[in-house]
Amino acid sequence: MTTSADRTGSLGLVETRHTTLFTREDPLRLDGGELGPVEVAYETYGELNATHTNAVFICHALTGDAHAAGHHGDPSRPGWWDTIIGPGKPVDTNRFFVVSANLLGGCMGTTGPSSVNPETGRAYGLGFPLFTVNDLVNVHRALMRRFEIDRLLAVVGGSLGGMQALQWAVEHPDEVHSAAVICASSRLSPQNIAFSAVAREAIMRDPNFHGGDYAAHGVRPDAGLAVARMMAHITYLSEEGMRAKFGRRLQDRAEPRFGFDVDFQVESYLQYQGESFLRRFDANSYLYLTRVMDYFDPFADPTVYGPKLERLSTRFLVMSFDSDWRFDTAHSRELVRTLAAHRVPVTFREVSSPHGHDSFLLVVPEYHQTVGRFLDRMAAEAIQ
Amino acid sequence: MTTSADRTGSLGLVETRHTTLFTREDPLRLDGGELGPVEVAYETYGELNATHTNAVFICHALTGDAHAAGHHGDPSRPGWWDTIIGPGKPVDTNRFFVVSANLLGGCMGTTGPSSVNPETGRAYGLGFPLFTVNDLVNVHRALMRRFEIDRLLAVVGGSLGGMQALQWAVEHPDEVHSAAVICASSRLSPQNIAFSAVAREAIMRDPNFHGGDYAAHGVRPDAGLAVARMMAHITYLSEEGMRAKFGRRLQDRAEPRFGFDVDFQVESYLQYQGESFLRRFDANSYLYLTRVMDYFDPFADPTVYGPKLERLSTRFLVMSFDSDWRFDTAHSRELVRTLAAHRVPVTFREVSSPHGHDSFLLVVPEYHQTVGRFLDRMAAEAIQ
Repeated sequence: MTTSADRTGSLGLVETRHTTLFTREDPLRLDGGELGPVEVAYETYGELNATHTNAVFICHALTGDAHAAGHHGDPSRPGWWDTIIGPGKPVDTNRFFVVSANLLGGCMGTTGPSSVNPETGRAYGLGFPLFTVNDLVNVHRALMRRFEIDRLLAVVGGSLGGMQALQWAVEHPDEVHSAAVICASSRLSPQNIAFSAVAREAIMRDPNFHGGDYAAHGVRPDAGLAVARMMAHITYLSEEGMRAKFGRRLQDRAEPRFGFDVDFQVESYLQYQGESFLRRFDANSYLYLTRVMDYFDPFADPTVYGPKLERLSTRFLVMSFDSDWRFDTAHSRELVRTLAAHRVPVTFREVSSPHGHDSFLLVVPEYHQTVGRFLDRMAAEAIQ
Repeated sequence: MTTSADRTGSLGLVETRHTTLFTREDPLRLDGGELGPVEVAYETYGELNATHTNAVFICHALTGDAHAAGHHGDPSRPGWWDTIIGPGKPVDTNRFFVVSANLLGGCMGTTGPSSVNPETGRAYGLGFPLFTVNDLVNVHRALMRRFEIDRLLAVVGGSLGGMQALQWAVEHPDEVHSAAVICASSRLSPQNIAFSAVAREAIMRDPNFHGGDYAAHGVRPDAGLAVARMMAHITYLSEEGMRAKFGRRLQDRAEPRFGFDVDFQVESYLQYQGESFLRRFDANSYLYLTRVMDYFDPFADPTVYGPKLERLSTRFLVMSFDSDWRFDTAHSRELVRTLAAHRVPVTFREVSSPHGHDSFLLVVPEYHQTVGRFLDRMAAEAIQ
C-alpha cells in the first residue's frame, strides 16, 4: 500500500503507445472524404475503474502531442501539461483514468500529412484530406470505444483543445458528462485568421515547400515554418509578459551591436522558438491544424445548433486569461452567452495572469484550483 | 486672383524633385559612419513666405515616400497624406510651405541600400551603413538649409514620422517651433520589436536574399518581403476594424471551399497588400527602416535627455488612436509624461477611431480638426 505522500507529484516514467483505429477496409469517414489506415499515438495515466466512469480525455492544442504528463526517461523534460496532470494534481491520476492522444493530421505518431499514403507509397502531403474539428473528435471517440468507455467524466482542452472539447459535447452530449474549455473560441476572429493565414503563406511561399511534396524532394520548408512559429509565438505571449520577461534588454551584451543579427533578448527568444520547432514539427501538419481552426464555427447556424444545445446536459467550465489576446475573454464570453441562452449549465471564470495565451500551459494557481474543483464536483456527480 | 472656393481641396498635379545634399567629398556624417553622395527625393506644396517662417516639414512612416499630397497625373491616386495636406486642409497649403522628403535608407528616390555604392559600382545592399533616427533628421535638416529655412513652423509625422519629429525637436529645438507627433513611440516595446524581428527573419531567410546582395543575383526576396508586409498589416488594423471590414466573410463565394487557397476576405486583403507592396518597396530598405525604429530610444538616459528637455521650448501635439495596438496610447502617454515632467509645453489627445494604427492615414474628423487647430495656433505664434 502506498501512502498519500507517495501518491502526490509526478507520474514518473510513461510511454506513448500506438494503435490502429481505422483501416483501409474500414476507414475513418471524414466530413470531407475517407481515410485509412488511421494510427493514433496516445498515453494513459491512472487506472480505469470497474464501471468505466472515471475517464478524462485531454485534447491538445495546435502543436501538442500525446505526451501530456510524466516523462519519457528524463524527469527534467516532462509532458506539456505535466503541471496540471498527475497524482494529487487538478487532473488527479490517483482518481481519474486520463487519456491523451495526438491529433489526426498531426506529426507525433497519429496519421497525418507526413504519413505514407498506402495508395502512392509516399507521404500524403497536401493529398491528405481536409478535416474538421468534428473529425478530430471522431478519432478520439474511436479510441474511447477501444477502451470500452461510453461516457467521459470530462473532456479537457486549451485553445484548439478546447474547441475539440466543445465540439465533442455539442455533437455527442451523452458521451461527455463535462467539458472544460480553456482559452478557446467557438469562432476565430478575422485577426485570428489573419495571423494563421500569414503563417501559412510563410510556409507555402518557401521554395522548399514544393506544393507540400517536400518530402519527395528530400527538403523541408524550414525557413517558412520557423517564421510561422516565431510569428505565432508573439501571439501566445502578452505585451505585459514580454515587458516583464525581456523588456528592451540586449542579449549577452551591455551595448547594442547595431546590426541585423540578434541583439535584443526578445529576438533571441523568438529565434530559439523558431529553430527548436523545426526539430519536432511538420509544415503540412501546421497548415492542416491551423486551417481546421479557421473553419471551426459550430454556432454558425442557429437552426442547426439550437436543437443540439437544447438537449445538452453536459456541464461546462469555460475559462479565459485576462492577458490572452490570441483568444481573449470576449471569445469565451461569446461561447458562454450562447450556451447560457440555451440553458446549458456553464461556469465561467476569467483568471488574471500576465502570461497571455500561454497561461494555460503554466502554473497559475487560481486556474489550477478552478479546474481541480470543477473536476471534483464532476467526480462526485458521475463516478460510480 | 483666385477665389476662396478655388483654393480649397486638392493640390492637383505635383512632382517629385531630386537634389544631391551630400557628396563623396562632403559626405553625410552618420552616427555610425559617413555616406556620400546622398540624393534626396522631395516634394513641396504651397509657397515659402518672405520671412521663411511658414515651413511645415512632413516626415513619413516606414513605407511612405516624398509624394505626400496632390497627384502625379491620375487624380484618383493622390499622395499618401493627401487627406490632411492641401488648400484649406489641416496642413493648409494656402498658408504653409510644406516639404515632404523620402527618408534616408528608403527606396523612393532618396539614397538607400538599393542605390549604387560608388566604391563598388553595385547596390549597397547590407553594405549600406546602419543609421539612426538622428541621421534621418540630419538629412531633412540639410534639405531645409538648401531652402534657407532656419526654423520650421512645425514638423509633423505619424509612426516613424512622429519619431523623426520628436528627435528633431529634442536635438535641435531652435529649428522647430512645434512638433506634431502622431501615433508614435519614444521607445518600442518588446512586442513591437518582436513583430519587426520576425518580418526581417522572413526576408533574410528567403533563399533569394543572398545576404542582401539579391540585386547582384538578379532576383528579389519577394516571398519574404510579402510575408513581412502581410504580417505588419495585421498590426496596422484593429481587431474591431477587421471585424467591421471583413468579419468571417468569404471571398467571392457563399460556401467555404475548404482548402489552403484564399477563402476568407481577410486572406484576400492580406494577399493583395503583400503582392502590391512588392511593386514598390525594396527588401533591404525594409530591414534598415524597421531596425532604426527598434533602436530609437531618445529617453534612455536621463542624464543625457534631461538637460535637452529643460531647454526645449518647442510646442508639442501628441496624438494617439484608441484602437491602435501597434503603438497604443500608452506609448503616447509615456512620451507626454516625459515631456511634461520637464515642463515642455505639450497638448495630448487620444482620438477614438476604429481603424487602428492606420487611422493616421485616414479621415478621422476629430484628428484632423486637432491637427488643424494646433497648426493654426502655431501659425499665429510664429509666422512673421
